Amino acid sequence: MEENITSVPVLRFIELLGTFAFAISGIRHAAAKHFDWFGGYVCGIAVAIGGGTIRDVMLGVTPFWMTNPIYMICTAFALVVVIVFAKYMEYLSNAWLVFDTLGLALFTIAGIQKSLACGQPFWVAIIMGCITGAAGGVIRDVLLNNEPVIFRKEIYAIACVFGGLTYWLLREMSMPIEITVTASFFVTCIIRFLAVRYKISLPLLKDSGNA
Amino acid sequence: MEENITSVPVLRFIELLGTFAFAISGIRHAAAKHFDWFGGYVCGIAVAIGGGTIRDVMLGVTPFWMTNPIYMICTAFALVVVIVFAKYMEYLSNAWLVFDTLGLALFTIAGIQKSLACGQPFWVAIIMGCITGAAGGVIRDVLLNNEPVIFRKEIYAIACVFGGLTYWLLREMSMPIEITVTASFFVTCIIRFLAVRYKISLPLLKDSGNA
Amino acid sequence: MEENITSVPVLRFIELLGTFAFAISGIRHAAAKHFDWFGGYVCGIAVAIGGGTIRDVMLGVTPFWMTNPIYMICTAFALVVVIVFAKYMEYLSNAWLVFDTLGLALFTIAGIQKSLACGQPFWVAIIMGCITGAAGGVIRDVLLNNEPVIFRKEIYAIACVFGGLTYWLLREMSMPIEITVTASFFVTCIIRFLAVRYKISLPLLKDSGNA
Repeated sequence: MEENITSVPVLRFIELLGTFAFAISGIRHAAAKHFDWFGGYVCGIAVAIGGGTIRDVMLGVTPFWMTNPIYMICTAFALVVVIVFAKYMEYLSNAWLVFDTLGLALFTIAGIQKSLACGQPFWVAIIMGCITGAAGGVIRDVLLNNEPVIFRKEIYAIACVFGGLTYWLLREMSMPIEITVTASFFVTCIIRFLAVRYKISLPLLKDSGNA
Repeated sequence: MEENITSVPVLRFIELLGTFAFAISGIRHAAAKHFDWFGGYVCGIAVAIGGGTIRDVMLGVTPFWMTNPIYMICTAFALVVVIVFAKYMEYLSNAWLVFDTLGLALFTIAGIQKSLACGQPFWVAIIMGCITGAAGGVIRDVLLNNEPVIFRKEIYAIACVFGGLTYWLLREMSMPIEITVTASFFVTCIIRFLAVRYKISLPLLKDSGNA
Repeated sequence: MEENITSVPVLRFIELLGTFAFAISGIRHAAAKHFDWFGGYVCGIAVAIGGGTIRDVMLGVTPFWMTNPIYMICTAFALVVVIVFAKYMEYLSNAWLVFDTLGLALFTIAGIQKSLACGQPFWVAIIMGCITGAAGGVIRDVLLNNEPVIFRKEIYAIACVFGGLTYWLLREMSMPIEITVTASFFVTCIIRFLAVRYKISLPLLKDSGNA
């Protein structure tokens, strides 16, 4: 296994599952604002590919979604699912949470690996991992005219940071890449699940008067 | 006629008319929020060049507006027109709609041609055509703290998609470029005009509960 | 002194002071919306590096913050300061205004010099100077779901434009680079201070009816 997760079939499958869950998240938020199908599709796209696109533009490489239509197709499929199964979406909340978290963990690793492959230092790679995992949701909230939810609730991007630090630590210790990826993946997932389960949040900033 | 519309004088003229109409749209929306002249200018710029800039950054080429000051000058002229003729702007609504639609159709074709010239496949070119035509209005709405209007009302970006598909179809059939461009142009315009005239919209997404 | 301000120690120091003040601005605005620590950090980052990142992406070079971790560290330090000294932040408003203005003036010059070094014409360089100085605050307001404050109040980006024009004028006159930089710096600062002191604003756009 090289240091490129998308060449491993099982991880490739998780990537698509994550893309699908991210797209579902964007489309459902758009539905809550009564956007039309096109608006839903764009919000789905924004969550699914927004973070990776920002990463690729900053790395100076062609945005990943332009090299393979699978991400657009996956989002179109998510749109059909949301439209057809609107009534049942709510009962699947736990499934979306699981898929979303798997996607978050994998996107983070993908962002780290791509940044390292572009010759970036590790601290940049960790930031790029965070951006890959978490920036799409921020773009969604900006498009929907909401305050970005990850700035106020939940441990989300911070889980990416810890996943990234785990990757870095194990890599420094020259661990095999399989172990490094697996450990990083589970650290991100576990932190996210624990935060959701026990409603753990970061402290809020206190209003310090007229800014 | 090569596959590059901006080398044809009549299309070059339509491009400037479209830029002007797009800038007017940004500045008038800024006026509705009582922004100052500078805010109006930035919103005008955002609509006029925002979509093309996103396209060019993703294609990895220098943003088009940096190669010719005409777009900045055209927007400045639009600002002067809005300030001086504020009282009469409302009566010109139909003119703006026509210019805006001509611009939309032409920007879409320009986006497609530039993407193909950069070696992108056709499905990427159609997306880039849409972004060139429609993303500027989304940036405007984000800057104005509004929900993007094209996500809820009107057939707008979808008209670009059909214009793009027309371009693709005729090109696959090896039609002369003049016919391909003209047909694509009119398909986009006609779909947009029909949608406005008969108030045709895409179906809205149904709220599927807590997203 | 070459035409690259960041190689001069005193200007390097002002750059960090400006970065710090910009970060403080982002974090305090986030605090006013009761974001958490992570949200505050991201808003601080957005103001401190957002403008320069947009500039670098459009110039086609690696974003400056990826070449040196000092900007991330400086913002982290600003976050600690806002958290620990929340009660005292309000009394320091004048200090933040001064630091912010120094940063604005220096960022503008840095943006101009980098653009010229990339072979851009001067009118592009002035726009890039404005973007470097002022776009971060717009990103902050978009993330916070506010209307961008610089579109409605204060002379802010216009001060950058005048600073940039001063740079251009003196450079055309073949003045020594030290004088060009110093004059441009003070023009930006003085216009900004006068505008704040005497509450000078640009005229507002009049609402011209349904846009």
